Amino acid sequence: MSDLHWKSAITKVEPNRLTIRGYQLDELIGHVGYASMVYLLFKGELPDKKRAKMLEAILVSSVDHGTTPPSVLSAITVASSGAPLNAAVAAGILAISKFHGGAIEDCMHVLISTMNLTQSKNISYNDAAKEQINQYKTAGKRISGFGHRIHTQDPRTDRLFSLAHELNIDGEYIKLANSFVNEFAKTGKKLPLNVDGAIAALLCEMDFDPQLANAFFMIARLPGLVAHVYEEKTRYKPMRKIHPSDVEYDGVINRKFEE
Amino acid sequence: MSDLHWKSAITKVEPNRLTIRGYQLDELIGHVGYASMVYLLFKGELPDKKRAKMLEAILVSSVDHGTTPPSVLSAITVASSGAPLNAAVAAGILAISKFHGGAIEDCMHVLISTMNLTQSKNISYNDAAKEQINQYKTAGKRISGFGHRIHTQDPRTDRLFSLAHELNIDGEYIKLANSFVNEFAKTGKKLPLNVDGAIAALLCEMDFDPQLANAFFMIARLPGLVAHVYEEKTRYKPMRKIHPSDVEYDGVINRKFEE
Amino acid sequence: MSDLHWKSAITKVEPNRLTIRGYQLDELIGHVGYASMVYLLFKGELPDKKRAKMLEAILVSSVDHGTTPPSVLSAITVASSGAPLNAAVAAGILAISKFHGGAIEDCMHVLISTMNLTQSKNISYNDAAKEQINQYKTAGKRISGFGHRIHTQDPRTDRLFSLAHELNIDGEYIKLANSFVNEFAKTGKKLPLNVDGAIAALLCEMDFDPQLANAFFMIARLPGLVAHVYEEKTRYKPMRKIHPSDVEYDGVINRKFEE
Amino acid sequence: MSDLHWKSAITKVEPNRLTIRGYQLDELIGHVGYASMVYLLFKGELPDKKRAKMLEAILVSSVDHGTTPPSVLSAITVASSGAPLNAAVAAGILAISKFHGGAIEDCMHVLISTMNLTQSKNISYNDAAKEQINQYKTAGKRISGFGHRIHTQDPRTDRLFSLAHELNIDGEYIKLANSFVNEFAKTGKKLPLNVDGAIAALLCEMDFDPQLANAFFMIARLPGLVAHVYEEKTRYKPMRKIHPSDVEYDGVINRKFEE
Repeated sequence: MSDLHWKSAITKVEPNRLTIRGYQLDELIGHVGYASMVYLLFKGELPDKKRAKMLEAILVSSVDHGTTPPSVLSAITVASSGAPLNAAVAAGILAISKFHGGAIEDCMHVLISTMNLTQSKNISYNDAAKEQINQYKTAGKRISGFGHRIHTQDPRTDRLFSLAHELNIDGEYIKLANSFVNEFAKTGKKLPLNVDGAIAALLCEMDFDPQLANAFFMIARLPGLVAHVYEEKTRYKPMRKIHPSDVEYDGVINRKFEE
Repeated sequence: MSDLHWKSAITKVEPNRLTIRGYQLDELIGHVGYASMVYLLFKGELPDKKRAKMLEAILVSSVDHGTTPPSVLSAITVASSGAPLNAAVAAGILAISKFHGGAIEDCMHVLISTMNLTQSKNISYNDAAKEQINQYKTAGKRISGFGHRIHTQDPRTDRLFSLAHELNIDGEYIKLANSFVNEFAKTGKKLPLNVDGAIAALLCEMDFDPQLANAFFMIARLPGLVAHVYEEKTRYKPMRKIHPSDVEYDGVINRKFEE
Repeated sequence: MSDLHWKSAITKVEPNRLTIRGYQLDELIGHVGYASMVYLLFKGELPDKKRAKMLEAILVSSVDHGTTPPSVLSAITVASSGAPLNAAVAAGILAISKFHGGAIEDCMHVLISTMNLTQSKNISYNDAAKEQINQYKTAGKRISGFGHRIHTQDPRTDRLFSLAHELNIDGEYIKLANSFVNEFAKTGKKLPLNVDGAIAALLCEMDFDPQLANAFFMIARLPGLVAHVYEEKTRYKPMRKIHPSDVEYDGVINRKFEE
Repeated sequence: MSDLHWKSAITKVEPNRLTIRGYQLDELIGHVGYASMVYLLFKGELPDKKRAKMLEAILVSSVDHGTTPPSVLSAITVASSGAPLNAAVAAGILAISKFHGGAIEDCMHVLISTMNLTQSKNISYNDAAKEQINQYKTAGKRISGFGHRIHTQDPRTDRLFSLAHELNIDGEYIKLANSFVNEFAKTGKKLPLNVDGAIAALLCEMDFDPQLANAFFMIARLPGLVAHVYEEKTRYKPMRKIHPSDVEYDGVINRKFEE
């Protein structure tokens, strides 16, 4: 049975002692934020304060986007059938897939391969971006991370990038992403970076594996999914017909955040 | 079709403007933590700094517990079959159920009904706890939130409660939870509050709906699930036999956290 | 590690030999139907020909009910996000819950407890049904399995019951179910048995555990879920808005089945 | 809102009338088997009697394969956490993925592309199979559907193919599949067609879309998943450690099937 013996490098569990990536958990509680734990679990190291703040901002930026995303619609549809909270949330997670959230991973791959192009061919970001845009165009494919159904200038992108600038995390991948926007503009297309593209660029800056891209979206969006499922369960009758867009916001408006 | 028109009080989506519970999202990014967004989404209000810190600590405390919980085993089993990350994570979420994570909700119900008992009968916390313990014993049921398979003194509980004390959040529900420990001790049972029980008491202090209890565990544990799925996908061959306990920690050890 | 050794009484797997509940699988293939395998797996015995035919009819009767059930809506919503077939189907399965499919189990419990009532109190089916109806009314609860949002006389119920009559499976539980319809009628309510109620009565006749009720619905409906997911993937663009009821049938019409 | 109006060609739902692919459902119940309904839903036509029998045999052949497949392990792990039946089954469905069940679809693609090769190049099945085997070898990839971890001669394959022969469904794709076995043998490898490969060949014979391959496995295996979840819930305590292979069959043995 020795072939069944296996190893894991994440968490060591001993009686009255839990150690995550080498750090005693109770020494982290109260000192380190949730976003830092995500970083620690995924990369094996705690982030510096700037990266911790950047990652927290990324998670905050994607915490909810109203009722229309398919993850919310599948979650509340399942909730409406009387399923428990975790089953409804799981149905929501299942919709965070290729066309919903998946843009982050796709855009990371584009940025990484374009960065490699600039290095292998020794060309500028603009030229490399132009080459990629043409290749995708020829293949009849869209480059993920640019443009948005609703937002012409995604307010989350602007804020994330100004924060990245404050924190000195706006390095080469941000420049490269902006080169794509410039090159799109030259072809007459206004395709600003959307929040998926912005997160992709920032995850590239922080050197995360693109395989993990979807995780950041799932983690960010989970509280939103829960809030919608909870609203469904406490406000609506089971088995109602759920319209995908004829929905009106009736919550509090115009609050001013003051720290 | 007017019966299909519905309302939601969570997020208002307008072109270039996202408002969550009345706050403009881009004004929150970089200023407010992820845990505060959870609080805002669930309760409709931003927490004060102490509650924000307490909730963040709760999320950090449950971020992972090694490979043995069923949520990890179902997630990596699904990952091992070649499923995408989100499907593996969904399978993990499906195991966060009655006997895994569910103790938080069960314990909240016990604490709330015992608190009501002290008020309706005008009796002490100890007497009320004793009455509940006897009732559960007679019914042949266990009270959730006390005792642990592995930890005789859960290090997460101690840390969460000392933090609650620092932050002045250690109110009546913490006292009540400790009364249960005292009364168990009088019957000769050493049943300290485990991390589920500690979180239950703290969520009662912060006046969360017990229906949402499981959400805090799902949100906390999601990064851990992702880390295990990622390890499975990058370290092991597909379709391996996964032993539920013959696993050895081979990661970094003995790191000291310094702020 | 000997506590990990466990036992299962379902299928014996040996090299070049598979035995299900004691029968060699390759001796069953081609001789026994899928419904009989369901019966064998759940009850440990192969059904006689009449029960095999009855169970097959039950599965056929619930194979699909158009696009409006929440299981279809959650499945195609997830499919529309680009998820693979099995993930979309899993999201559909998650909606086969308390208020969608769950009526079969609820109705089985009502029928079994009412049958026990007739025996313990030595009263008629009508009187026992009347007593139950009154108890549910007093408790403000609905009895599952009677009445339908769309069908005033569910064509599946009629056909299943006439088949049960032909096959001599229309025993005491069918009579009891009809007593409920009679007693509802006396209170001025036209509440015919719907397909869930009919299946509940038939599963009681065949002495299945109510815990398994939902399984028959899941098995029956799975091909329908797949067909809708396949239609979504082959006919529609990803991320479309899916209206829950403004859908028009545009398939073949008015075919006549001839054996 | 007219863009929300959509169409479906599967089931027409009218009061007291259900029509699937043009056939009135109540006219099919009792006359047509479950496998025929699968065929009808997927292809829009009822199968002839031979194809109905063949498809039923395919579903029966894959109804269960003991406790070791990841779909069973994830399903019972979730069940063990106290989740409801449908959630446990959904976790099982999520493991029916690339490396578990997915071989059917992969093998269909290989067979179809090899068939195209024989036609475009006007070469024999053996030569085309040889060319494919070499291409896969060069690419360092395995051809799915051949060989089995446990069975050197899969009893299900033999039975399915002898049945196909009886039913006259053993056409060109079966010959082609056997050419692969022959060509593997010439390279010194004994790689008989496993049940996935056999089903792939038969689904090609019946001209099903490979996109649907996984559906046949999910439909076939669902009763098995339910049986294992039911056994877990009725026989074992929650939260037990589930060993992936140290399991012993303790059910009925050596039954003889007689029609």
